[in-house]
Amino acid sequence: MNPSRLTLLISCPDEPGLIARITGVLHRHGGNIVENGEYVDPSVDRFFMRTAVEGIGDVDLLERVLKTELPADATVRLGGEERKKVVLMATTEPHCLGDLLIRSAYGDLPMEVCGVISNHETLRKLSESFDIPFECISHEGMEREAHEAAVMARIDALAPDLVVMAKYMRILSPGFISKYKNRILNIHHSFLPAFVGANPYRQAWERGVKIIGATAHFASEVLDEGPIIAQDVIPVNHNHSPKDMARNGRDVEKRVLARAVRFFLEDRVVVTGNKTIVFE
Amino acid sequence: MNPSRLTLLISCPDEPGLIARITGVLHRHGGNIVENGEYVDPSVDRFFMRTAVEGIGDVDLLERVLKTELPADATVRLGGEERKKVVLMATTEPHCLGDLLIRSAYGDLPMEVCGVISNHETLRKLSESFDIPFECISHEGMEREAHEAAVMARIDALAPDLVVMAKYMRILSPGFISKYKNRILNIHHSFLPAFVGANPYRQAWERGVKIIGATAHFASEVLDEGPIIAQDVIPVNHNHSPKDMARNGRDVEKRVLARAVRFFLEDRVVVTGNKTIVFE
Amino acid sequence: MNPSRLTLLISCPDEPGLIARITGVLHRHGGNIVENGEYVDPSVDRFFMRTAVEGIGDVDLLERVLKTELPADATVRLGGEERKKVVLMATTEPHCLGDLLIRSAYGDLPMEVCGVISNHETLRKLSESFDIPFECISHEGMEREAHEAAVMARIDALAPDLVVMAKYMRILSPGFISKYKNRILNIHHSFLPAFVGANPYRQAWERGVKIIGATAHFASEVLDEGPIIAQDVIPVNHNHSPKDMARNGRDVEKRVLARAVRFFLEDRVVVTGNKTIVFE
Amino acid sequence: MNPSRLTLLISCPDEPGLIARITGVLHRHGGNIVENGEYVDPSVDRFFMRTAVEGIGDVDLLERVLKTELPADATVRLGGEERKKVVLMATTEPHCLGDLLIRSAYGDLPMEVCGVISNHETLRKLSESFDIPFECISHEGMEREAHEAAVMARIDALAPDLVVMAKYMRILSPGFISKYKNRILNIHHSFLPAFVGANPYRQAWERGVKIIGATAHFASEVLDEGPIIAQDVIPVNHNHSPKDMARNGRDVEKRVLARAVRFFLEDRVVVTGNKTIVFE
Repeated sequence: MNPSRLTLLISCPDEPGLIARITGVLHRHGGNIVENGEYVDPSVDRFFMRTAVEGIGDVDLLERVLKTELPADATVRLGGEERKKVVLMATTEPHCLGDLLIRSAYGDLPMEVCGVISNHETLRKLSESFDIPFECISHEGMEREAHEAAVMARIDALAPDLVVMAKYMRILSPGFISKYKNRILNIHHSFLPAFVGANPYRQAWERGVKIIGATAHFASEVLDEGPIIAQDVIPVNHNHSPKDMARNGRDVEKRVLARAVRFFLEDRVVVTGNKTIVFE
Repeated sequence: MNPSRLTLLISCPDEPGLIARITGVLHRHGGNIVENGEYVDPSVDRFFMRTAVEGIGDVDLLERVLKTELPADATVRLGGEERKKVVLMATTEPHCLGDLLIRSAYGDLPMEVCGVISNHETLRKLSESFDIPFECISHEGMEREAHEAAVMARIDALAPDLVVMAKYMRILSPGFISKYKNRILNIHHSFLPAFVGANPYRQAWERGVKIIGATAHFASEVLDEGPIIAQDVIPVNHNHSPKDMARNGRDVEKRVLARAVRFFLEDRVVVTGNKTIVFE
Repeated sequence: MNPSRLTLLISCPDEPGLIARITGVLHRHGGNIVENGEYVDPSVDRFFMRTAVEGIGDVDLLERVLKTELPADATVRLGGEERKKVVLMATTEPHCLGDLLIRSAYGDLPMEVCGVISNHETLRKLSESFDIPFECISHEGMEREAHEAAVMARIDALAPDLVVMAKYMRILSPGFISKYKNRILNIHHSFLPAFVGANPYRQAWERGVKIIGATAHFASEVLDEGPIIAQDVIPVNHNHSPKDMARNGRDVEKRVLARAVRFFLEDRVVVTGNKTIVFE
Repeated sequence: MNPSRLTLLISCPDEPGLIARITGVLHRHGGNIVENGEYVDPSVDRFFMRTAVEGIGDVDLLERVLKTELPADATVRLGGEERKKVVLMATTEPHCLGDLLIRSAYGDLPMEVCGVISNHETLRKLSESFDIPFECISHEGMEREAHEAAVMARIDALAPDLVVMAKYMRILSPGFISKYKNRILNIHHSFLPAFVGANPYRQAWERGVKIIGATAHFASEVLDEGPIIAQDVIPVNHNHSPKDMARNGRDVEKRVLARAVRFFLEDRVVVTGNKTIVFE
């Protein structure tokens, strides 16, 4: 919308006067704040701030000045309005992939999908109908390590800002995950931390819960333990079989994943420890 | 409302024609069905039916006839419109207890609260303001066994249909629970099975979840593992401390508990295995 | 799933013993009831029943026998498991159309989309990527009557069971609507009856509501007054512009519309007066 | 909790640098910001800010300095941590009144309820059980004007910061409302603007909606048209009679009202035009 809008994400040890100092710098450089959020993580006494600002002339100068005004180990991330590059990964289920492709194609999510990677051929036609290059890298007859190396090579060739596991049903090795730390979004089909691991809908059915959900989180070395970004739920009852739960759950999965992707694309998510701050 | 309304709860092995046979009997005895629900539990091939019927003349006759028409090991429960007797148990938190007392006093829940039992004096005034006898049975200086014996003696003197743990913060022994099997409702302050045990709000905060909830369930021998009756949730975010979560969570606890109590009072809950069927 | 599953929808004046009579007939014809729901509309004293039944041998015989057992003006609708034929109509917004096309392509909704009709070319590529014939019938330079005649001719050529207005942004004449009475589903982008007519998100913004919603309903002669099938909502706040509301609202629109379409396809919706009974 | 916490609510014409100036003043006076929110109303180009700050020594000095730094027609409201005084008004329904009384008695809402006023005797016992003075001012045999004068005299004697209509079922005259402008909270038992006026649950039932709700708003001269503070909804279906809707709706009413009261007590609500900004 506004080509000159800038998003700042600042993280530094907490100390008095940070907001005044930061907003003072922005004002002196011609910035007009249009959105603003702050948070102090009490467990590590660290300050986080996200500011959307318009009218900044010299962005490099701003960044240099900001750093001199902030504590030594502050991190400052400045993002413009260019769309982020995203690689989508999926296996055979189309609901999350299709939803993201439509949102992207029609400008609902500000991203450039640079490729779809799958370990099956199933979703090729769906991807290509949106003119997105689809690459099937089958795991059949391959060692995990070799398969992951092939996938990583493809990802690196596409050089994305974000990798989205849109129901990619393979467990990733710690090496894979650490290579793209806090840049892999995953959707888990349960309300974490309930029902980690395989077959969460069957687990939910066996426990007789009255609500099921989905969780979008950053992938981490420990399965289903990464920082949570978004969650949502729907009611179920005794009439729902595990299959019914799965069908209804898909609607939750796709909207939770789209929400988390949006937060990432708009620079609203910061990881602190094993949690996220989401500046909504 | 309608003095002649009868609620039937039938459970028996599934076989063809059960609905036709049962509704046929009801019709021949002058019954008019006003609410009806059926369910077959596929894991045990058992049929469950709840029917609210008006106009039955001879209830005892109906029951005898029904039993001759149903498989040998069928159970038939017939309930009239008399209000069920309920004992409420609490410790120091007033939100669930107060909510149930108000609902009872003003006819929102069709129950007769015959007493409040607590291990603290804190809630005496609240109970007595609704003219409900309050008995404090302190656990101070008592062995668990002796304390539970005193509580059970008091419950037995009140002879309730249902015991509601309205934030009674003591773990009950298996002996206590089996004495009132499927007649003790408990409210757990998390979305079970996530965060069993102590301090669920702190656990939720530490995991960084974006939704918290509450679960009403029948108390069972294994802590927080009993059949679930009702659950609900609310969103939270990084700004919420464990204390904020607890405060907001109390609103969910009280409405989930009230919902489960209503289902029980209206004969809508049947336990099968470790799950409930709730005929809403 | 089950080729021999039959769905019955019965509507007749209420009288005692209907359930027993109907389920008796089903049992005697070899039917096993797998889903069952009844409702009596008190304002017209009419009985409605939906039953899913397996194992019926002679369906025509069943229908004849049922009619002899039911009051004279009873209507009995019997549906098998064949997928219903659906025409989708849209203008330029892709979110509802795309969502329905994906759901159909991958078997989430049991329908056969036989065509997409639009008054713009915008959505041609989306439709055709799912191999669905797309026909643009522009209203430019045409009288309303002539345009509608052309649209109706195309619909009639496709002979659908259901027409879905998936954000078709033209008001339909009473003649059009009565031709496909209770077979046109529309999605309105507000929580009806709030904000009827044009620009509901702007109306919502001007009123300062804290929740916005969407409503799926049968199209009726009076705009936005038809029988409501499904509704859902999301929270908004002062930070949301009308444009933000529209963007977030689209997610509600598409899931509410998909829900209503599912109810229709599974024969769960009955119209009584200006309301619907939805046998969920 | 923190005796030295101060809440600032600032409203002034928007201009560049306001946040930097305000937070600069706070910092120079020893303030540490613990919560912060800003909003610019684009329709009137006005800036609003709410800040919770700790550590301010001289509050009067702060206020004087702030005013010299801000545009001429700025308004600055400074609130400490003293509990606000509240008068509750009700008629015969206990659910909202009882819920607020319990929340107040046990510290869930930071308010001092200084009295309950009703036009019926019904709720005297409930109020007095919480040691809250109850005054019945019957409207029987009185002109509206005289009755309102008596009510206003009682309110003025109690000198509250806020008047809460907790299901007070009398329409207030414009004179009454303007006397306590933006200090009267009302709960309307529908999702406004749907179903204004009398019998909203019956209206909802007649329209056949699938969701019902409640709206907490500031009372205004035009009935049910005041600025909305909070809304919530629950699903209903064809089985719900108007009476069922009313019963289920009461749960929504009480939680929406409690939410709006909390926002007011914590100085989170600002009115701009006919809308509210709620700094959550």
